[in-house]
Amino acid sequence: MKRLDTLKREALEANLALKEKDLIISTWGNVSVYDPDSGLMIIKASGVPYDGMSIDDMVVVKPDGSVIDSAKRPSSDTPTHLYLYRHFAKEGVLSIVHTHSQYATIWAQSCLPLPCYGTTHADYFHGPVPCTREMSGEEIEERYEENTGKVIVEALEETNPIHTSAVLVASHGPFTWGKTANDAVFHAEVLEYVAKMALFNRLLTPAIEPAKQTLSDKHYFRKFGPLAYYGQP
Amino acid sequence: MKRLDTLKREALEANLALKEKDLIISTWGNVSVYDPDSGLMIIKASGVPYDGMSIDDMVVVKPDGSVIDSAKRPSSDTPTHLYLYRHFAKEGVLSIVHTHSQYATIWAQSCLPLPCYGTTHADYFHGPVPCTREMSGEEIEERYEENTGKVIVEALEETNPIHTSAVLVASHGPFTWGKTANDAVFHAEVLEYVAKMALFNRLLTPAIEPAKQTLSDKHYFRKFGPLAYYGQP
Amino acid sequence: MKRLDTLKREALEANLALKEKDLIISTWGNVSVYDPDSGLMIIKASGVPYDGMSIDDMVVVKPDGSVIDSAKRPSSDTPTHLYLYRHFAKEGVLSIVHTHSQYATIWAQSCLPLPCYGTTHADYFHGPVPCTREMSGEEIEERYEENTGKVIVEALEETNPIHTSAVLVASHGPFTWGKTANDAVFHAEVLEYVAKMALFNRLLTPAIEPAKQTLSDKHYFRKFGPLAYYGQP
Amino acid sequence: MKRLDTLKREALEANLALKEKDLIISTWGNVSVYDPDSGLMIIKASGVPYDGMSIDDMVVVKPDGSVIDSAKRPSSDTPTHLYLYRHFAKEGVLSIVHTHSQYATIWAQSCLPLPCYGTTHADYFHGPVPCTREMSGEEIEERYEENTGKVIVEALEETNPIHTSAVLVASHGPFTWGKTANDAVFHAEVLEYVAKMALFNRLLTPAIEPAKQTLSDKHYFRKFGPLAYYGQP
Repeated sequence: MKRLDTLKREALEANLALKEKDLIISTWGNVSVYDPDSGLMIIKASGVPYDGMSIDDMVVVKPDGSVIDSAKRPSSDTPTHLYLYRHFAKEGVLSIVHTHSQYATIWAQSCLPLPCYGTTHADYFHGPVPCTREMSGEEIEERYEENTGKVIVEALEETNPIHTSAVLVASHGPFTWGKTANDAVFHAEVLEYVAKMALFNRLLTPAIEPAKQTLSDKHYFRKFGPLAYYGQP
Repeated sequence: MKRLDTLKREALEANLALKEKDLIISTWGNVSVYDPDSGLMIIKASGVPYDGMSIDDMVVVKPDGSVIDSAKRPSSDTPTHLYLYRHFAKEGVLSIVHTHSQYATIWAQSCLPLPCYGTTHADYFHGPVPCTREMSGEEIEERYEENTGKVIVEALEETNPIHTSAVLVASHGPFTWGKTANDAVFHAEVLEYVAKMALFNRLLTPAIEPAKQTLSDKHYFRKFGPLAYYGQP
Repeated sequence: MKRLDTLKREALEANLALKEKDLIISTWGNVSVYDPDSGLMIIKASGVPYDGMSIDDMVVVKPDGSVIDSAKRPSSDTPTHLYLYRHFAKEGVLSIVHTHSQYATIWAQSCLPLPCYGTTHADYFHGPVPCTREMSGEEIEERYEENTGKVIVEALEETNPIHTSAVLVASHGPFTWGKTANDAVFHAEVLEYVAKMALFNRLLTPAIEPAKQTLSDKHYFRKFGPLAYYGQP
Repeated sequence: MKRLDTLKREALEANLALKEKDLIISTWGNVSVYDPDSGLMIIKASGVPYDGMSIDDMVVVKPDGSVIDSAKRPSSDTPTHLYLYRHFAKEGVLSIVHTHSQYATIWAQSCLPLPCYGTTHADYFHGPVPCTREMSGEEIEERYEENTGKVIVEALEETNPIHTSAVLVASHGPFTWGKTANDAVFHAEVLEYVAKMALFNRLLTPAIEPAKQTLSDKHYFRKFGPLAYYGQP
């Protein structure tokens, strides 16, 4: 099954890129990729370290969460990823990344959405990066990981997940996504970059307002969509 | 005495890992490992630099603090380590790490416990990381290093040291520990990671409350204890 | 055309230096160099990554913005660079750098000029680094990149661009320049360095005043101008 | 003249160590070493970059500031170094380091002494690191570099320069020193380390008080002086 091998390779490389970009330490975080035709998802095995990670640590999971052809347990966050593909795959989301990168996690721990304070943010995220509501005690105790997916989808309710391809899970950390694993990892990197700047903007000028909507639109749509003129044709 | 050689090797590698993980500079910090059968402890020699450190810099110490088979003086913090093994070895603490890693030390210098603001903390420390009381002038002047152990044990009085395997010594810095030297070093790394985030959370949202107890329990116990489901079986 | 090849090489090396000095990630930022004799400008192609960048990614642009001898689109910021050379080349500005380096961008996002708080700043920038006014909705929607040049020139109105070779574009990020590409890159590096320090000065002592004008003059003019005595003759 | 060659080598290595320890960028900063017998000082040539620095960039200077056996101009800070040796050499100061390391410079720019908030500071600096007064306009305009030495000596008036081997020059940056070039460089490194922590302590707990004097004494004198018990005999 060549297709699956390619997806596994893509998932492995994306997981390793998280480490190289200093977005994770130890065994933290995970990347999944999704095949919309078969409904299969490839995700990192649970708790495996990035050093020495191999293709055998990429686990194939069916939509119901069962594992194909691997003795390894998939990431404990598997139900979150499956829930997100269920809702966002039709919009084009084919890869999801979860990290505990420090500055994005700080905003998540403070339960605050990340405002757009400038063009660096506007170039990649159209509007603020939302923060989920806190989960109830019941949602935490029962089906916790699936409920993480549920509050993410709620937080994105009025947002196109391809235009705002990131979320902060309250008291937890960021999830990002994209059309490819490369995109999803890159969004994790950009999110961390702008989260750091935005934090210090709040400390430097506590009354700071988001950048003008016109500027946010201009920068986003010069990069993405039919009128884009950034990059090579 | 092969057993001692293995422990020395473990202590050396853990000391070197502190350097590699940017948790120490110069000669600062130390790692000890403890053998519950013989009551012997291996600890870094005092004031030796990490560059060029070798197995000969690992000193074997008896419970009364006397040195076996080495011309080198053990770490000046030896009485602290011995005091902690005396109280915590029965709980399973077999390795102790001391660093001056910057963000953990900042909390220690501000004499504040480190609250649990999110799942990154909850994944490894169950509840806040306590801060000791400040020592009295007498405690500092007489038997200072042993008294450091004493205030640590006091600070952990109502806490299982295996579930909360770290402490901040007021005006000083962090100690962490674990069942193995690897664990103790990793806890030092995680402590530094969450201490940095928590600092900025306090600056970003000064009124921030700790994460929900349910969330703290959920994350800790999905990793540790009989109901754990994180990682490979 | 040997002269153009030399300029292309200079532009390429300067672009790569931005990456090496951690002033950019991904495809962000750009360097241009200007030939005052021919009026030609060399600038990075739009949206190309720094990894694997080659001489072929340096695009030659005529004063009217049209491209010579390249299938590649020049940086989307091309009209900004052209506008700046139109106004500043006669003062000796022959290279321009744009980055989203984090601390300079924080000041830009807070729409604040960067004050001179000490000799590190005074050694390279004579007086505060100005911040542009925010652009109007119309200026953003029509001829955005050229208008970016316009507000930069406005912000420098009473300033010698060779003495203050940097600007912060409100809600966006820094531009720096110099007589050579090396100078322009170095000014980007110094700007980031002093922007970080100045941010923490504001947090540490919110009422901080700029360094004395005498000190600013002393340090600038011991490095630059007829009375300079820093460096080798 | 073998003795001078040895001192030059020592000065070169110490200059290079500043770069390796990330305490300087570009051509900034300098190290000098002093020979108390001949009264000669070796110091970095002015404005030379650290990359490619060689023994030929070490300039020998006589007590009156004139240069021996070199076509190169010594550091523009030469009169500061000479002034300090004139006052501190008899106390044992035989090497001086000047950097613009970021966190130490932040304290200098805020014109604040660096308080001792914990044992990391107390281990190397006995008491707060003083900050000089601001220089008058006249002191800046005439004999600026020598006057820098003058305000440093004033700031240390009631302090043993070997016990407090660092100073912050207001609106400028740190100078450190020691009995050897190694010591002086190490003090620059420790100063930067504790300056960063102390900054965040002030942000985290603005009302923070210095660590107890007893603790400061205990830590300093367990490392230095007749009662020291840290390190190897």
